[in-house]
Amino acid sequence: MSQSFFETHRELLDKAVEAIHQRTYWSAYPEVPSGKVYGETARDDGQRAFEARLNKPFELPDHPAAAGKVGAEVSPYGMTLGVSYPRVELDSLFAAVAKAEPGWKRADMQTRVGVCLEILHRLNKLSFEMALAVMHTTGQGWMMAFQAGGPHAQDRGLEAVAYAYDEMSRTPHEATWSKRVGKEETVTLRKTYRIVPRGIAVTIGCSTFPTWNGYPGIFASLATGNAVIVKPHPGAILPLAITVETARGVLKEAGFDPNVITLAADEVSHPITKEIVQRPEVKIIDYTGGSAFGEWIEQNAKNAIVYTEKAGVNSVIIDSVDNLKAVTGNLAFTLSLYSGQMCTTSQNIFIPREGIETGEGHKSFDEVAGALVKAVDWFLGEPKRATEVLGAIQNENTAQRITQAKGEGLQVLRDSTPVVNEAFPSARTSSPLILKAESKDRAKFAREMFGPIAYVIATDNTDESIALASGIAAQQGAITCALYSTDPDVITRAEEATAEAGVPLSTNLTGSIWVNQSAAFSDFHVSGANPSGNATLCDSAFVAGRYRVVQSRIPVQG
Amino acid sequence: MSQSFFETHRELLDKAVEAIHQRTYWSAYPEVPSGKVYGETARDDGQRAFEARLNKPFELPDHPAAAGKVGAEVSPYGMTLGVSYPRVELDSLFAAVAKAEPGWKRADMQTRVGVCLEILHRLNKLSFEMALAVMHTTGQGWMMAFQAGGPHAQDRGLEAVAYAYDEMSRTPHEATWSKRVGKEETVTLRKTYRIVPRGIAVTIGCSTFPTWNGYPGIFASLATGNAVIVKPHPGAILPLAITVETARGVLKEAGFDPNVITLAADEVSHPITKEIVQRPEVKIIDYTGGSAFGEWIEQNAKNAIVYTEKAGVNSVIIDSVDNLKAVTGNLAFTLSLYSGQMCTTSQNIFIPREGIETGEGHKSFDEVAGALVKAVDWFLGEPKRATEVLGAIQNENTAQRITQAKGEGLQVLRDSTPVVNEAFPSARTSSPLILKAESKDRAKFAREMFGPIAYVIATDNTDESIALASGIAAQQGAITCALYSTDPDVITRAEEATAEAGVPLSTNLTGSIWVNQSAAFSDFHVSGANPSGNATLCDSAFVAGRYRVVQSRIPVQG
Repeated sequence: MSQSFFETHRELLDKAVEAIHQRTYWSAYPEVPSGKVYGETARDDGQRAFEARLNKPFELPDHPAAAGKVGAEVSPYGMTLGVSYPRVELDSLFAAVAKAEPGWKRADMQTRVGVCLEILHRLNKLSFEMALAVMHTTGQGWMMAFQAGGPHAQDRGLEAVAYAYDEMSRTPHEATWSKRVGKEETVTLRKTYRIVPRGIAVTIGCSTFPTWNGYPGIFASLATGNAVIVKPHPGAILPLAITVETARGVLKEAGFDPNVITLAADEVSHPITKEIVQRPEVKIIDYTGGSAFGEWIEQNAKNAIVYTEKAGVNSVIIDSVDNLKAVTGNLAFTLSLYSGQMCTTSQNIFIPREGIETGEGHKSFDEVAGALVKAVDWFLGEPKRATEVLGAIQNENTAQRITQAKGEGLQVLRDSTPVVNEAFPSARTSSPLILKAESKDRAKFAREMFGPIAYVIATDNTDESIALASGIAAQQGAITCALYSTDPDVITRAEEATAEAGVPLSTNLTGSIWVNQSAAFSDFHVSGANPSGNATLCDSAFVAGRYRVVQSRIPVQG
Repeated sequence: MSQSFFETHRELLDKAVEAIHQRTYWSAYPEVPSGKVYGETARDDGQRAFEARLNKPFELPDHPAAAGKVGAEVSPYGMTLGVSYPRVELDSLFAAVAKAEPGWKRADMQTRVGVCLEILHRLNKLSFEMALAVMHTTGQGWMMAFQAGGPHAQDRGLEAVAYAYDEMSRTPHEATWSKRVGKEETVTLRKTYRIVPRGIAVTIGCSTFPTWNGYPGIFASLATGNAVIVKPHPGAILPLAITVETARGVLKEAGFDPNVITLAADEVSHPITKEIVQRPEVKIIDYTGGSAFGEWIEQNAKNAIVYTEKAGVNSVIIDSVDNLKAVTGNLAFTLSLYSGQMCTTSQNIFIPREGIETGEGHKSFDEVAGALVKAVDWFLGEPKRATEVLGAIQNENTAQRITQAKGEGLQVLRDSTPVVNEAFPSARTSSPLILKAESKDRAKFAREMFGPIAYVIATDNTDESIALASGIAAQQGAITCALYSTDPDVITRAEEATAEAGVPLSTNLTGSIWVNQSAAFSDFHVSGANPSGNATLCDSAFVAGRYRVVQSRIPVQG
C-alpha cells in the first residue's frame, strides 16, 4: 500500500525535483477553480462539506489526549463557525506521539515521501472545501482563499517534499570503502548510512495563511521522518484541522499510527504555544507569525532547531517610470489584495520630493502620490471587485491599527473606509489608508504597521529611498522590495543594497504580476538574511537539519 | 589570477564532489610522508622551517589590530616554543575584517572556491613543517601529526569546500520564469539568485587537532563568502597561525584584502573567546572543544549559527569474537594512539560478566580483560613504537585526571605509567590506565574521562552492554561505538540502538582499521544527533546555513 503511493506519484515528484533545480515556472496543482479540472460538482461539494463542518465538534478519530473541547473561531465575514476541536492534555499528547514516532522514523524514505505525496493529492481534491475554511478564518476573498489556501499551499508543500527527497537522496544508502593500507593489505568496509530524524516537530500556524505558510514545515518534517504536532493559530484552526484529518487518514491507510500527525488547538484565552515550544521532546519548530513571539521562540526553544517566518517592513522605491498609470495600477492591486494583510504587502512607498521622470514627462511628488490614490480609488470603485480583492480584516487589532496610524499627525492622502460586502453585511472591512510622510518621519514608518496602511514618503532622492528601504529591511526585516526605475544604474545600485539587506527585489512589475506574489518552485520566500525570518521556503537548509545521518561500518571479507 | 586558481584545481574539485556523493575511499592529499611524493628535501626543509619559527614573533604582515604580543605555547614534549603572536584589540580587529569582507563576499563563487583550493594546495606543501607544529603543540607522535595535522586535515578542508561548492551550485544563477496568466497574456520574468554570505565567521580551535577539526569550518565559511576570524586554543596556536599566514598570502595574490582571514590568539590567563562569540558582528561560529564551553556557546551566541563538535563517552561492546587476539590487538592500538586523547577514543569496554564465546571456546570476563591488558602491554613493549604511538599528554589536567580515576576505588587492571621518550626526555607521558568496573558503577564511567583512561565493565549480558553504550551516548554524547559480535541478530540490535542514540557503529574491526579513525569523504564525523555536537563533518547542513540566497526579478519583454 504505502510503497504504491510513492509509485503513483513518482512522476510528479521527479518533476518537482527538476523544478527546484531549474526554478522556471512550474506548478503541480491547478490554480484555476474550474469544474473541468476539479470536477463539475466540486464547488458545490466543497460548499456542502464546509457547511457540514459548522456548529459541531470536529471529529478526529482516535486523536489522543482529548480533554474537552476548544475552538472559538469567528469568520472575519461575520459568522461564528461554531466548530470545536479536541482540547489536548500535553503529557498524554506527547506520550501518544512518542508511541507513534518509531514506526514512522523507521519507514524507508520512499514510503514516507509517498505518504506525503498522497496527502497532498487528497488535499488538492479538497481545495473547494479548503477555500471556504481559509476564507472564513483568514478573511481572504474566495478566489485568493482557493488559490493560496489550496493549490498554491499544496505546491509549497510539494516543494518541501521535493527538497527533502532530493537532500536525503544525496547521501548513498550504502558504500563500499576500500583502502590500500600496506603493500599487501587492503581494508574493505561496507558502510551503511541511516537517516535518523530529529524527533518531534511542531508547526505553529498563523492566522492569515495557515496552509500556505504551514505546509512547508509540516511536509518537510514528515518527509524526513519526524512526527508533527500542528499548533494552529486560535483564529484559523479549521484549515489545519482538515489538513491533519486528511493526513491521519492516509497514514492509517498506509499502516502507520495516525498520531504521527496531531492537532493541538487552543483559544486566545488559554494559549499553549509557549508550553509546547519548551517541551524537551520538541526538536524542530516551524513558526509563522509576529516578530515579537518569533524572537521569543528563537531565544527560548533551547532543544529545537527553529525555522521562523516573521514580519517585516516592505518598501517600494519609485525612481522613474515609463507608464505611471501601469505602475500605480499595479501598486493599487498590491495595496488592496487581502487588505494589505500579506507579509509580502508593501508598506512604504519612497518617491523623490522633487518628483520623477515618466514616459509622459516630469511628474511632481504630489502628482505621483495622487495617481496612486486615484488608482486605488478606481480599482475599488467596482464594488464586486473591491469586495473580492479586499476580503475582510482578519483581526480586530488590525482594524484598530488603522485608527492609530491616522492619529499620528501625518497627512491622510486616502482615508480607509468600510467597504460594503453584499454577501456578508457584517464583514469586518477596511480599504487601504494612504498617508503622506517625509523621510524625517522615520520613526513612524520604520516599523511594521500590519494591515491596509501605506506611507508615501518624500525623500531627497532615489539614493535616499534605496538607503531607507534597505536600511529598514536590515534593521526591522523585510520580505519584499519593489523598484520602479528606467535607469540601469539605479537598478544595479538597488540590487546591491537590497541583496545586502537580505530582501529580494522586484523591478518594474506591471500588468498581471505583483510584488506580493511568491511562486513555489521559483521564488525563495523570506531570505533568512534579515530579521523577517531565519529560514526560506524552501531551500536545502530548510530540510537538511531535520534529520541526521548515522553510519555503521563493518569489514567485508576481500 | 584568481579565476586561474579555480581552473588549476578544478579537476581535483570535481573528484572531491564525486567522492562526497559516492563515499567510497578517496583522498586528495597523500598521507605517506615520502620524499617521492613531497620531494626528497621536504622533510629537512620542514624541520628547518619549523625551527625558524621558534623563539621569535610570528610575523603576519599587515595583520590588523596588533596591540602587543601573546603566546605561551609549551610543547608537551618539553620545550618552550617561544613564539609570540599579535595580540588583537577586538574593536580594531572587527573594523578591519568588516572592511575586508565586502570584496570577498562579492567575488564570484568560482573565484572564492579557487582561492580555497590554492590555500589547501599550499598547506599540503607545508605538511612537514605543519607536522612539527602540530606535534609540538598537541603532543601527537610525529607520524600522526603529519597525517592528521597535514593531509588528513587538508582532505577535511577540501571536503568542506566540495560540499559548499556542490550546495551553492544547486541553485541556478538565473532562471527565466514564464507563466501564462490569461488567454492572451504571458508574464515572463528574469530571476537572478545571488548568494549572500552570513557575515563574519569565527572558528574556535581545539588543543588536540587544531587543523583537522578547524579546517572544515574555516573552509566552509571562506568558500561561502564569509570572512573568518581564527581563534586558536592558547595551547595550539602555531598550526593555525601557519594556516592563517598561508591563506592570507593566497588572498593577497588573488587581489583580496588579506584580512578576510585573521588570527585572534590569546593566553590562558586572558581568554578572549567569550567576548568574541558575543560580538554582534559574528554570524557563524565553529567550535571544537569541551562540552561545557560548547554548551555555553550554543546557549549564548544569540546572533550566530553555531556548529559544535564537543565531547562524548565512547563505548566498545564485546559480545562474541572469532579471534580474541586480533580484537584485543586492535583495541590496544585504539587505546594507545595519542594516549587516548582523540574525541573518537573508546573509554568504556562492556563485556558480559559471564564471559564470551570465541573461536577458541568460551573465555571468562577476566580472561578477556586480561587479554586486553596483555595486548596493551605487548604493544607498548617496543619502546620506539610506544613513544611514537602514545605521543605526549597535551595538557596537565589530563595527567591529573589519571590520578583522579585511580583514586575512585575501582580495581586497576593496568596501571598508567610514564613512558621514556629518548628523543624528548621531558615529554609528559602516560600509558593507558585500565580499570575494572561493574555496570552498577555507572556514575564513575558514564561521564567523559578524557585521556588514557579506560573502563572494562562487567554487564549482565550483551543487551545490557548495548543499553548502557547507547543510553550513555544519548545522554552524554558519543562520537564512536565499537561492537564485536559474531551474531547477526546482535549486530542488528546494536545498529538500531546506536543509530537511535546518534552514534556511528563500527563492527568487528581488526587489523589495520580502528574505531577511532574517521576518513574524509566517507565517514561522517560526529552525527549531530546526540550531545557530542550539533554538526557533522561534513554534510549539506554544515554548509547550507552559511549563506542565504537573495533573488531579484525583472520582466523580460516577450
